[in-house]
Amino acid sequence: SAFFTRIHTSNWFQNAIVGVILLAAIAIGLDTYPSIRSEYGGVLSFLDKTILGIFVVEIVIKILAEGKKPWRYFKDGWNIFDFLIVAVCFLPFNAQYVAVLRLARILRVLRLITVLPKLQLLVGALLRSLPSMVYVGLLLSILFYIYGVTGTMLFSQNDPIHFGTLQDSLLSLFRVVTLEDWTDLMYINMYGSAEYGYDGNQDLIIQSQAQPLLSITYFVSFVLFGTMVMLNLFIGVIMNGMQE
Amino acid sequence: SAFFTRIHTSNWFQNAIVGVILLAAIAIGLDTYPSIRSEYGGVLSFLDKTILGIFVVEIVIKILAEGKKPWRYFKDGWNIFDFLIVAVCFLPFNAQYVAVLRLARILRVLRLITVLPKLQLLVGALLRSLPSMVYVGLLLSILFYIYGVTGTMLFSQNDPIHFGTLQDSLLSLFRVVTLEDWTDLMYINMYGSAEYGYDGNQDLIIQSQAQPLLSITYFVSFVLFGTMVMLNLFIGVIMNGMQE
Amino acid sequence: SAFFTRIHTSNWFQNAIVGVILLAAIAIGLDTYPSIRSEYGGVLSFLDKTILGIFVVEIVIKILAEGKKPWRYFKDGWNIFDFLIVAVCFLPFNAQYVAVLRLARILRVLRLITVLPKLQLLVGALLRSLPSMVYVGLLLSILFYIYGVTGTMLFSQNDPIHFGTLQDSLLSLFRVVTLEDWTDLMYINMYGSAEYGYDGNQDLIIQSQAQPLLSITYFVSFVLFGTMVMLNLFIGVIMNGMQE
Amino acid sequence: SAFFTRIHTSNWFQNAIVGVILLAAIAIGLDTYPSIRSEYGGVLSFLDKTILGIFVVEIVIKILAEGKKPWRYFKDGWNIFDFLIVAVCFLPFNAQYVAVLRLARILRVLRLITVLPKLQLLVGALLRSLPSMVYVGLLLSILFYIYGVTGTMLFSQNDPIHFGTLQDSLLSLFRVVTLEDWTDLMYINMYGSAEYGYDGNQDLIIQSQAQPLLSITYFVSFVLFGTMVMLNLFIGVIMNGMQE
Ligand code: NA
Ligand code: NA
Repeated sequence: SAFFTRIHTSNWFQNAIVGVILLAAIAIGLDTYPSIRSEYGGVLSFLDKTILGIFVVEIVIKILAEGKKPWRYFKDGWNIFDFLIVAVCFLPFNAQYVAVLRLARILRVLRLITVLPKLQLLVGALLRSLPSMVYVGLLLSILFYIYGVTGTMLFSQNDPIHFGTLQDSLLSLFRVVTLEDWTDLMYINMYGSAEYGYDGNQDLIIQSQAQPLLSITYFVSFVLFGTMVMLNLFIGVIMNGMQE
Repeated sequence: SAFFTRIHTSNWFQNAIVGVILLAAIAIGLDTYPSIRSEYGGVLSFLDKTILGIFVVEIVIKILAEGKKPWRYFKDGWNIFDFLIVAVCFLPFNAQYVAVLRLARILRVLRLITVLPKLQLLVGALLRSLPSMVYVGLLLSILFYIYGVTGTMLFSQNDPIHFGTLQDSLLSLFRVVTLEDWTDLMYINMYGSAEYGYDGNQDLIIQSQAQPLLSITYFVSFVLFGTMVMLNLFIGVIMNGMQE
Repeated sequence: SAFFTRIHTSNWFQNAIVGVILLAAIAIGLDTYPSIRSEYGGVLSFLDKTILGIFVVEIVIKILAEGKKPWRYFKDGWNIFDFLIVAVCFLPFNAQYVAVLRLARILRVLRLITVLPKLQLLVGALLRSLPSMVYVGLLLSILFYIYGVTGTMLFSQNDPIHFGTLQDSLLSLFRVVTLEDWTDLMYINMYGSAEYGYDGNQDLIIQSQAQPLLSITYFVSFVLFGTMVMLNLFIGVIMNGMQE
Repeated sequence: SAFFTRIHTSNWFQNAIVGVILLAAIAIGLDTYPSIRSEYGGVLSFLDKTILGIFVVEIVIKILAEGKKPWRYFKDGWNIFDFLIVAVCFLPFNAQYVAVLRLARILRVLRLITVLPKLQLLVGALLRSLPSMVYVGLLLSILFYIYGVTGTMLFSQNDPIHFGTLQDSLLSLFRVVTLEDWTDLMYINMYGSAEYGYDGNQDLIIQSQAQPLLSITYFVSFVLFGTMVMLNLFIGVIMNGMQE
């Protein structure tokens, strides 16, 4: 086991794995070009299997390095993460789910996080700062839920595209909190959808209603509260992550 | 009174109340789907009354816990908040205001803040940091008011949709401070509304005027001052809230 | 002079002045409504003169309070500011410049800053933090100038609306730095103005040119550098302002 | 050599150089106006050569100031920078690359950074804070690459304009991370390009596909992760730059 430990902690081995991951990343990238795929499909497929084989060997070495207690390999969260990324490629997918398998291969790029200690540290710090933010996140959820239900009640008749159902409203509120064209949503419900924003979609309107005061109050207050709590969440995570 | 205090401070009671609030939240959410409402309207209505009943019982227990001085219940701001949320549902609304009653029920979700101590702490910290920000808020108001009056004077003839009256201007300035399509407002008053931005609304134009220098100065300076003071306000509230 | 000092430092006098400024603000706001103006124009005009009179009296009291050295009144920057705001209303404007006079009256609202000590402190802190930011501002200017000249050279033929002259380019770059529809500018110069963004303005195009690589490099790099230096400037001013 | 050192460290020499750089900046700016260029082209060309000459003289003085070890001039990164900006103007460009030469002249404005010590300090601090941010930058790259490949796989058929190839996807993701009209990209892939966003470009669609769940998950998660890591990067660079 000391032999295998020496291998997987050696510089050349770790550098080689980083190289293999970068190669995997490039292969996956090239695979998205139909022309390259049709011409070099065989090479890419061979490369894919080789890379997968190397990852399997790496896992085996790391498990063997644990000696008589191989289960200790799975005590490290990052090892489980590595293992799952490889394991998912051995699942017996039907041809139907081949797209899912292709997507799964992209996750190999994430292995860079596990093999570069400083990157692991950074991501670990960000992940560990999440729990301290759970209450700001909860506050944000309450805000979204209250405005989501209210928005659906007030605007679902006038603006079914953005506030037709609770899930539509929540998506629209996320849009508002990123300040992306939020005034369009306000104007639709201020002037009524018959007047604003439904050109070419008039058939979707259930009943156009102009609610200027309600709409302004609703959107302006949500922009203020929502962006403030969201900014609080982001700054909180970043500051906590930096302190570590 | 010690008996009632023991009840409402016990873990199982507090968890039960959290559960009831979550149930209330789900019920209110489901109620926004017309299909669910028409089919399970009776169940939701029963659930609504049950939840209201539980909240009343909770208030009674907390008041009884105060023993011979029940008015002490109302010394805590959060208790008053809880009380009002329940009380509003007993107001004798006409059928006309049924929508208001439905909206009032959404506020029950806010009770999560009162029953989760850490969330109460967070919101309390944010609220307490507001007064320290009163002068930044005042500065922002002065900025908005000066630019609002100026904007109405300069642009009300050319761009009545966004600067027709003082309140229109203030709303447009809030839009500008969120950087949401602010250049459209600038271009309308730079090139004149006959040239830009009033397609299909030409009949609203009182008198198209191209004021390039005025418009650029007005909007660029407001973007600079407005976003800086706004950012100052937000960062101030968040930093103060975090320090606690 | 002790008598006049006692007056202008007394609480009732300062509160009265705050009241007069708020009244001036309301009067100026009401004056933007044509209907109110036509009906109550006389009242507003009388109010305006009364307020101006009170401000003159206030200045006289403060000058008299300096006793035998009245020029000391002008040693305080805020006093000069107050004086100018009043003085500008006595300038002999032709009827032609009446609009300028009306605009000048709005500045009276700024007097709130001089009469509320805490607001004066806040604005003073922000102003004093500006000099420390002069080099970040200079860096931003260099960035704008280099990209402005480059943009004019590269894109003036293809996109004369946004990059026709150096001043057009600088305005467009300010738009880009606020991230407001910056991709439209990039797409116009990526695909050529004959293909994108000049619907209805084709006659303005001098020569449509698609420069995908140049356009992407130019805009993406400017977004990165520009927003970073801008954010640095804003955070610098706010942090410096807070420390005081 | 002491003589030349005394020259190039003297106040009047440094101020003169700042003046020459500002003159160069103005000349380059004026040169972008076709009317000025056609009328005063000779003057501007003469000015350009004179400025170049002065810069050469400055370099010669600074090299001579090093005495018997002229190569020491090139030990300072800023000196190399100054040297290259001048040297590039002596490259034997064909008439074809005259535009490149004109662009190269703009870089002279950057010499302000080398001649103003405080600006040099600021830029140096920002540059030195970059390495500490290399892992946040790497994390951002991994995020972009994974989402880029995924986006190309999922959306290239439906939305070839924004996700046709990997490089298109990466550009679109940069747009999303600046929150610039990101919902348009989401809606195109939510509703299918036959329904949304391809008016006038229907011929480019390979196969319209509505993938609401995938599209919402993809874009909302990328907005959250992308803006957070990006903000982390920016705040990191600024904070590190400020501490120095
Ligand atoms: Na935006
Ligand atoms: Na936008």
